[in-house]
Amino acid sequence: MRISPACLSLPSCLLLVSLAVDVVASPNPLPKSRWVRQGRGRKPSTHNLQTRDAECVENNATHIAAPFQNVWDELSNVEAASVVQWLFQQPELNLTVSDDAGPWDNTIQLVELMRPNKTDVLQYLDHSGSPPARYAHAVLAHRASEEPYYADILVGPLPVKNGTTTWEPLEYPYTRKTLGRVRTLDADTELQQEWLYNISATIADITLDLWNGTALGLDNDTLDIWGIDPYWQDDGHIVRWDGFWGIPTDKFDMETLLPLGLYIKSDVTGRDPSKWKHEGWLYNDIYYETTEEFRKAYYSPGFVKLGANIEGAWGQTGREGPVLPQDANYPPVAVAPSGARYSVDTERKYVTWMDFSFYVSFSRDTGVSLYDIRYKGQRVLYELGLQEALAHYAGNDPVQSGTSYLDSYYGFGPSFYVSETTHTHVDSICLFEFDADFPIQRHSTSWYVSNTKNVYFTLRSVSTVGNYDYMFSYSFYLDGSIGVEVRASGYIQSAYFANNHDYGYHIHDFLSGSMHDHVLNFKADFDILGLNNTVELMKQVPVTKNYPWSGGKARNTMMLKRSIVENEDVGRFNWDANSATQVRVVNMDERNKYGEYRGYRILPATGTVHLTVKDSSNLVNAAQWAGYDVQVTKQHDYEPRAAHSYNTQDVFDPPINFNEFFNSENITQTDLVLWLNLGMHHIPHTGDLPNTVFTTAHSGVQFMPLNYLLGDPSRQSSNQVRIDYSDGNVTAVDLFGQHAGSCDLDFTPGTADLWNYHGDVVVRKFPYDPNDPFYETDSIF
Amino acid sequence: MRISPACLSLPSCLLLVSLAVDVVASPNPLPKSRWVRQGRGRKPSTHNLQTRDAECVENNATHIAAPFQNVWDELSNVEAASVVQWLFQQPELNLTVSDDAGPWDNTIQLVELMRPNKTDVLQYLDHSGSPPARYAHAVLAHRASEEPYYADILVGPLPVKNGTTTWEPLEYPYTRKTLGRVRTLDADTELQQEWLYNISATIADITLDLWNGTALGLDNDTLDIWGIDPYWQDDGHIVRWDGFWGIPTDKFDMETLLPLGLYIKSDVTGRDPSKWKHEGWLYNDIYYETTEEFRKAYYSPGFVKLGANIEGAWGQTGREGPVLPQDANYPPVAVAPSGARYSVDTERKYVTWMDFSFYVSFSRDTGVSLYDIRYKGQRVLYELGLQEALAHYAGNDPVQSGTSYLDSYYGFGPSFYVSETTHTHVDSICLFEFDADFPIQRHSTSWYVSNTKNVYFTLRSVSTVGNYDYMFSYSFYLDGSIGVEVRASGYIQSAYFANNHDYGYHIHDFLSGSMHDHVLNFKADFDILGLNNTVELMKQVPVTKNYPWSGGKARNTMMLKRSIVENEDVGRFNWDANSATQVRVVNMDERNKYGEYRGYRILPATGTVHLTVKDSSNLVNAAQWAGYDVQVTKQHDYEPRAAHSYNTQDVFDPPINFNEFFNSENITQTDLVLWLNLGMHHIPHTGDLPNTVFTTAHSGVQFMPLNYLLGDPSRQSSNQVRIDYSDGNVTAVDLFGQHAGSCDLDFTPGTADLWNYHGDVVVRKFPYDPNDPFYETDSIF
Repeated sequence: MRISPACLSLPSCLLLVSLAVDVVASPNPLPKSRWVRQGRGRKPSTHNLQTRDAECVENNATHIAAPFQNVWDELSNVEAASVVQWLFQQPELNLTVSDDAGPWDNTIQLVELMRPNKTDVLQYLDHSGSPPARYAHAVLAHRASEEPYYADILVGPLPVKNGTTTWEPLEYPYTRKTLGRVRTLDADTELQQEWLYNISATIADITLDLWNGTALGLDNDTLDIWGIDPYWQDDGHIVRWDGFWGIPTDKFDMETLLPLGLYIKSDVTGRDPSKWKHEGWLYNDIYYETTEEFRKAYYSPGFVKLGANIEGAWGQTGREGPVLPQDANYPPVAVAPSGARYSVDTERKYVTWMDFSFYVSFSRDTGVSLYDIRYKGQRVLYELGLQEALAHYAGNDPVQSGTSYLDSYYGFGPSFYVSETTHTHVDSICLFEFDADFPIQRHSTSWYVSNTKNVYFTLRSVSTVGNYDYMFSYSFYLDGSIGVEVRASGYIQSAYFANNHDYGYHIHDFLSGSMHDHVLNFKADFDILGLNNTVELMKQVPVTKNYPWSGGKARNTMMLKRSIVENEDVGRFNWDANSATQVRVVNMDERNKYGEYRGYRILPATGTVHLTVKDSSNLVNAAQWAGYDVQVTKQHDYEPRAAHSYNTQDVFDPPINFNEFFNSENITQTDLVLWLNLGMHHIPHTGDLPNTVFTTAHSGVQFMPLNYLLGDPSRQSSNQVRIDYSDGNVTAVDLFGQHAGSCDLDFTPGTADLWNYHGDVVVRKFPYDPNDPFYETDSIF
Repeated sequence: MRISPACLSLPSCLLLVSLAVDVVASPNPLPKSRWVRQGRGRKPSTHNLQTRDAECVENNATHIAAPFQNVWDELSNVEAASVVQWLFQQPELNLTVSDDAGPWDNTIQLVELMRPNKTDVLQYLDHSGSPPARYAHAVLAHRASEEPYYADILVGPLPVKNGTTTWEPLEYPYTRKTLGRVRTLDADTELQQEWLYNISATIADITLDLWNGTALGLDNDTLDIWGIDPYWQDDGHIVRWDGFWGIPTDKFDMETLLPLGLYIKSDVTGRDPSKWKHEGWLYNDIYYETTEEFRKAYYSPGFVKLGANIEGAWGQTGREGPVLPQDANYPPVAVAPSGARYSVDTERKYVTWMDFSFYVSFSRDTGVSLYDIRYKGQRVLYELGLQEALAHYAGNDPVQSGTSYLDSYYGFGPSFYVSETTHTHVDSICLFEFDADFPIQRHSTSWYVSNTKNVYFTLRSVSTVGNYDYMFSYSFYLDGSIGVEVRASGYIQSAYFANNHDYGYHIHDFLSGSMHDHVLNFKADFDILGLNNTVELMKQVPVTKNYPWSGGKARNTMMLKRSIVENEDVGRFNWDANSATQVRVVNMDERNKYGEYRGYRILPATGTVHLTVKDSSNLVNAAQWAGYDVQVTKQHDYEPRAAHSYNTQDVFDPPINFNEFFNSENITQTDLVLWLNLGMHHIPHTGDLPNTVFTTAHSGVQFMPLNYLLGDPSRQSSNQVRIDYSDGNVTAVDLFGQHAGSCDLDFTPGTADLWNYHGDVVVRKFPYDPNDPFYETDSIF
């Protein structure tokens, strides 16, 4: 049995299938903050296989054969190793093995599958064509230059064969047409960190006086320095602001709760450190242009010294406080007496449950995506997956004000390809069926009551991106609806509390719960009964109106106003006030027998938000996807993703500027993509200490069939009952064929097996050494 | 074991406590539609006691003694019987026993507890006073009059003692000051029904021609006639519109799916049927002022005859269609290996779970309310419960257009006091603990992962009000948050499909899914650390701003704007666009050690709506609570409820006009009540056939502690783990004292015991006959 972080969240008696995610991906971009530098940066998730010894007959997931190849599946170990080897053989690339590379060497940043174009895939899936040729997408870090850059390239076709395999710049999926190249601001991160330590050293007397510590780059440092992301990129200058943070001495990951309130401004333009400039200090909302000025003020009478945030139980997870009543007893838990009721092709990462089926794909940048989601054999979505996640902070200090993480830069499944090794996160996808705490249907009368269980199926992955844990759930329901949900837990990134009550609550000694917006963009490429779809809006409006029967009196009532979203100019909008407008994806050529368009409705289920900040100074054009709730574009093979993972490297002219997807194209009865934002406004309060709780930090949308079938498909379920009665007696019980006998269940809490947890399987790709895999936990985060 | 409709929704292995609801309540108001007339009108819910024989040690709910009397508890059988007897002894009331009463006799409509004033209760709970004296609230139907009326009266103090017991008009809790009296439009409902049958008889040839049926008031009628609620009440006239409906011949409750598209207008002003007027017909959007005119048109060439909606499998619940893959296996299910982990005083209806406690109360009109909800010993809410539920339809036909059900008229727990019997709904409240499908907390790093189970506790009741089933859930979470949720299932009320595509989808042969708004008002009387509370708004706003460190460049960012809701003039508002504004109830005299106000945030969790229609012609002043999401008033003993169950009887001048609660009073640091609307816009589509599904028909708010404690209280839970690891090996597993051994569980699906279901316990109150209780199911609906 293997317990995975993704499944740890679950009642532990559910029988779960093993679906290994075997992805080749890249070394992390060089990181900003200590938790990233220590390898604590970012994580994908894993999943679970449990077998239990019990008298109830528990089946594991049924193994089936997927009808098609998973053309979105990651590169195999052999494919990845051969691409890496081939790249090192191309002299013009001048590549150095990561372990040997310095800041002026070129390295391989990422090798992964180049997901095939939809057009080509549909030839295969729908028109008996061949599977599209496989290509690798590689990112090279060209550092051997005064102007270092990342280069996206395409390598293939695969398998690698000398003579036929070539590489070419990858440009077509990006709005910026610069041969797939974007400058990197990361080439000299280590030098810049030294630069910061050197500045810190010049005021070691002050840091010792304030906090009894120093940040000098030594092993026994008790202070850390890191700051904004992305860097300021105005006027041709690259400017960074960094703050001092306490380093926890206990095991808990609470550095982001220990800001100290002193900030350093540096101009780090160019690759010559001798030209970098320390431009000032900020302390207690006072800006000092030079160290001398700051020092002079510090030692002047009346200088206000602020206190420190000190680690302690308040920032530690684990049990704390009185044991709750009866909490020593087993809590309720879900069990699967028959085991799994779903089917999997583990090789092709193909899953079926009831009348749903889909393929699973995984990437370093965005984690899990689902492809070819079908319901009752008919494709509903070609693609569904995360595009990017933004955490936009604000504050009176430059570090909070300047922080707008675009998390795919770190990756929702990183650490796969690290220094020419690939890491396979065992069990990183959690599949489970669950019985909701409410039925899907009920009705009672004086003579009968009927009730149907609400059993659903979820694919879940968890990505810890530094301090924060994002939980993504894709759920499938018996009524044909699909849920997309994200919840957030983990440690907040806090601010030092000084003069900033307008940016957060005061939540600990000198701590502000720094306000921020989480916005997470999902691509939902709907194909309702074919490619030609339209977004129809159905608005409920109050009206005052006469009727033939109203005797000449106007009545205050309401009615429906239908409209369609004609083109991309009007393709960006928000959920309507008072939820007045239904948003539907319909196929206007596919009416049901009553003349209604068949389609799916998009329904905010647990709240969604878009970005509060207008024209963010931090992001400029790097996250133009964040400003609306719903955005609709015509599908193009050249617009596969709303963001590029290196958009932070050039926020004025990022590789993908989502605004450029909107160019007035007609979007009626054509192939559409909906880009949906989930998210939460987060103003952390004391209840976010030590960790934010998933209970209230949630966001979700549902896709529900609307006039799609002729009735509710949950009627197919066997797990319903009807009781007929009269005069106080039951006269009939109909169980509709459901399994109703008893069996004996050996109840063992899942916690019993946590010792079997282990980390990633690591395989060296260059030189390729498939026979010596090893386990590692260092890069789990 | 007794399975209750309220618990039927649940995984059946949870161990549930028995909490009998023993309420004395009233005969239904005389009903409009056949399903009400047949006793199918409205229902409360019941609940569950399961004991299981297994080797895991399963405890039933722990029995505890409530610290106080439940002063909100319903009248006992003896109390109710003595009040009824006493009322019959008062000659001035001139009461007739229901079974003997005709339309010109006075009857007792309701006898229930008069819930005591908050002021008096707090003397008892908080200031060592005596429990407030108990009074009965009775409603008398005065029909022995040309102008019949309902009269609310107060009877007491209890116990009844000749000499000390008196009655008086009950006026103070109502905004209309007419001695607790409101006219009734229901005195002659049976005569009016005959009137309709007589009109129907005049066109029996037409109904036979159209639908091969008649509506004559005979047992073998295949057609039914019913219509709008409330009646039109303009210009001193009482006008009703009724439509023809098919009567199902099978067992399924689908009459509301069988509209036939012919409508009758009647002026039924006054009590003299000879003065009533048949004012016309409507068919296919054409209004005919007389039967002659209609008949002439009907038999003219070119008259368009429309088809009928015919019952069939499309409107039947039960299993239908192919059996789903693997659905014959047990689905997952929740079990409670240790049994219940909560405590109950069944006598006083007092419940505790973890650090929460509350008392349960029940009324015919509004179902379950919770009182004195405490968290960690401190009151958070004095009262929490449903006030009223509105279903506002619209349409091109007068029946849909004129229908705006105010469901407390029918009651969310009716049938308690029916013709001098009281009905005890056994097991009508379902209490259960559940393990969510996601944890409440998690965080992972390169060296450990931590995870806490999200176990919560729910009190649930289900009320079937005619065709519709409302499921109410009050849930309590380990982070101190409280959820209030309503979901809807059951049969829709549909419209005949003709010329009304602007009012709904075409969902079956001649059927429109008639658009309607569900709005449900909840009273949330917060007492955060005492009575003096304030609503603070915290808005996240985009700003462009210079900072001391921004080098003179204005930055586009965001900040917080705090404001307080000063008085009732600004006490009515909606959830902000993009969820930009947090709504919090705080006590400004109770700051935490960091200076933040302690409080609870009110958070829309699964979507809420307010009424679309402005100044509804149907409702006029009868549901002025429905127009906003959030409404805040100063608490007054004389404003205990937002609505009166007979508001429909005089919509221009109803007993409670919620608008009158708003009279500019200051609402800062005083005792506040929040009136919160939940609800859904519902435009039924084919997926609502046969029943609406709970999956997407949902609405909910959460109350979450915000800066209320100094940290997250879920840290107290034992049900968490932390796994430490390094180099691919687990180095430590901390289970924090949770129960982690195995035990043997006899798994039996709950469906095995459905034969033990039975109906209400009925006890005759006049003459009082406690020794001959009997079971009845006729009034379960």
